[in-house]
Amino acid sequence: MPEKTFSYQRLFDFTKSVFQKIGCSEEHAETATKALLSADLRGIDSHGAARLSGYVRLWEVKRVNATPNIKIMHETPSTAAVDGDSGMGLVVAPFAMQVAIEKAKNVGTGWVAVQNSNHFGIAAHHAMMALEHDMIGMAMTNASPLVAPTFSIDKMLGTNPICVAAPAREEAPFVADFSTTTAANGKLEILQRKNAEAPIGWVQDAVGNSTTDANILKKGGALLPLGGDREHGSHKGYALGAIVDIFSALLSGANYAPWVPPFPAYVPIPSQQPGKGIGHFLGAMRIDAFRPANEFKQHMDNWIKGFRNAKPIAGQEKVLVPGDPEREFEEERMKNAIPLLNVVVDDLNKLAEKFSLATL
Amino acid sequence: MPEKTFSYQRLFDFTKSVFQKIGCSEEHAETATKALLSADLRGIDSHGAARLSGYVRLWEVKRVNATPNIKIMHETPSTAAVDGDSGMGLVVAPFAMQVAIEKAKNVGTGWVAVQNSNHFGIAAHHAMMALEHDMIGMAMTNASPLVAPTFSIDKMLGTNPICVAAPAREEAPFVADFSTTTAANGKLEILQRKNAEAPIGWVQDAVGNSTTDANILKKGGALLPLGGDREHGSHKGYALGAIVDIFSALLSGANYAPWVPPFPAYVPIPSQQPGKGIGHFLGAMRIDAFRPANEFKQHMDNWIKGFRNAKPIAGQEKVLVPGDPEREFEEERMKNAIPLLNVVVDDLNKLAEKFSLATL
Repeated sequence: MPEKTFSYQRLFDFTKSVFQKIGCSEEHAETATKALLSADLRGIDSHGAARLSGYVRLWEVKRVNATPNIKIMHETPSTAAVDGDSGMGLVVAPFAMQVAIEKAKNVGTGWVAVQNSNHFGIAAHHAMMALEHDMIGMAMTNASPLVAPTFSIDKMLGTNPICVAAPAREEAPFVADFSTTTAANGKLEILQRKNAEAPIGWVQDAVGNSTTDANILKKGGALLPLGGDREHGSHKGYALGAIVDIFSALLSGANYAPWVPPFPAYVPIPSQQPGKGIGHFLGAMRIDAFRPANEFKQHMDNWIKGFRNAKPIAGQEKVLVPGDPEREFEEERMKNAIPLLNVVVDDLNKLAEKFSLATL
Repeated sequence: MPEKTFSYQRLFDFTKSVFQKIGCSEEHAETATKALLSADLRGIDSHGAARLSGYVRLWEVKRVNATPNIKIMHETPSTAAVDGDSGMGLVVAPFAMQVAIEKAKNVGTGWVAVQNSNHFGIAAHHAMMALEHDMIGMAMTNASPLVAPTFSIDKMLGTNPICVAAPAREEAPFVADFSTTTAANGKLEILQRKNAEAPIGWVQDAVGNSTTDANILKKGGALLPLGGDREHGSHKGYALGAIVDIFSALLSGANYAPWVPPFPAYVPIPSQQPGKGIGHFLGAMRIDAFRPANEFKQHMDNWIKGFRNAKPIAGQEKVLVPGDPEREFEEERMKNAIPLLNVVVDDLNKLAEKFSLATL
């Protein structure tokens, strides 16, 4: 696919300017930019700069509040429920994660359920905030319904990702960030652009038949939970997606299941919403609330080395540790440049025109 | 398969007597019996009475301590690390879960990592202890290495199950309890007894090729992480199993990855163990630490009804909510009887002989 490349700094300045143009404070604009572009840095191209115009359109239809009064509604020593005041998840989730970290400092762990938010970019960005404090970080979010539970043709859940980040000593941290579907929607979009077929087990058609049509979601089809079908454990992927929904939205008072508001601003919000906005769940556990941090990190090094040295299948890639591919992307792209598809650059340059900014 | 049936009470009295014969206190024998037989009640036949002789054999080779001094090694207001003193997980995990519940009463949530334990039966039994307190319960455990991570031929992880239990108001609770593999080992054992083939995606052979041989684990093969292969998201199942290992063993000081001790007493413990016994992780979150419990439970009812009423695929079963099949088993088997395979009855009657108990 035709693409151009940009330095991280160039994209950072541009994105921050756009967020400021819609009314974000400088602090919020920086927080949101870091969260958004962490996706581009880590190779999750579907969740980064490619979505900037989507956030702007949500702001235009007043579904994103650029100056949210994010506040704690209720709390205990180890928990809080946060109202995101319709802010972007890109600023709401870091606020909530900071609350979780402070609570973990005080009583060992902190757990924050968030309502009235919007999409938060990649979960890893928020979970990884815990690492520098020698804490394990967790982040999850619900999302608009694209996934049919096992045996169903109705789309009842989002791709509902989970991230867990754990520090090591000499090794890079363990960072597992994954959707609870066989394949995330971004993977499907790549196939659509290539006019390629999807593997069996990724999607089903409008009546629930297995299909390889990568465009099936536009024809009433659905993504499938991790596992694909019942015989291959799709009820487990469905259960995982359900857990994310319950933690993110039932605990916080956000919308859940088919009522989660869609990301595209032109798609109407489902009627009779049972909650507010979309929901997130953030957690932080202080390692030394269980055992000395140094001991834990030494064993994490040993754990990670064990997996790196596991014998690979002949002809296969080496055995990876969760977080390895994204970290390699981040190192390379921070040092050199971030590639953006021409369609994304065009989209960003329309924003530049709209807000009288220098084009990319 | 030929089988006999027994009332819950009959199996309870028998199992409790066996635990008392190996030296358990009456209290521990009752706790262990409830935990073990909850598997038979809930239809997870591989984890219940069928394993009783396995626990006895572990006691015979001094890998299970029937009179453990289970104690908290370290704690904060929301966390604890527990030493199971080589006790059965069937008594160690309920102790740890009770600690988590007490901490949740005090500061909103409680999280307990356990080292130096043994197998704890089914995760749901422990997680569900939280429900009567209007808490969400979580339980997970690592287990002996049967699972090859994506791209590997080495068995590095156990089936590492996770359970999350959440209360509802009028509906039965949400109880998701699942191994992080495509299929649990118990499912494979059923195929072995029937001389049937395994679906593609469940197991691989000793050099990492896909196979349908249900006996492949005895020939150097491995179970596969949920997803089956990379194209179908096995890296996500691998990440989930890894998270369970890190929470259960790296936080607690138990053995991890390929060093987790095996359940069969005749299989030697791996040398150079990095920790003690096997590890569990238990958690409890008080609902009203986030929002009023009644509000949450009302929305859980709505959530559950939404999934029950989701449109099923033509010719498929109805859409289930996690916990539905196990609850139906429990209601039926508690009321009527629990079926045991003749081989299991023979095994239990050998224990009866050994301990001079009336045979079943």
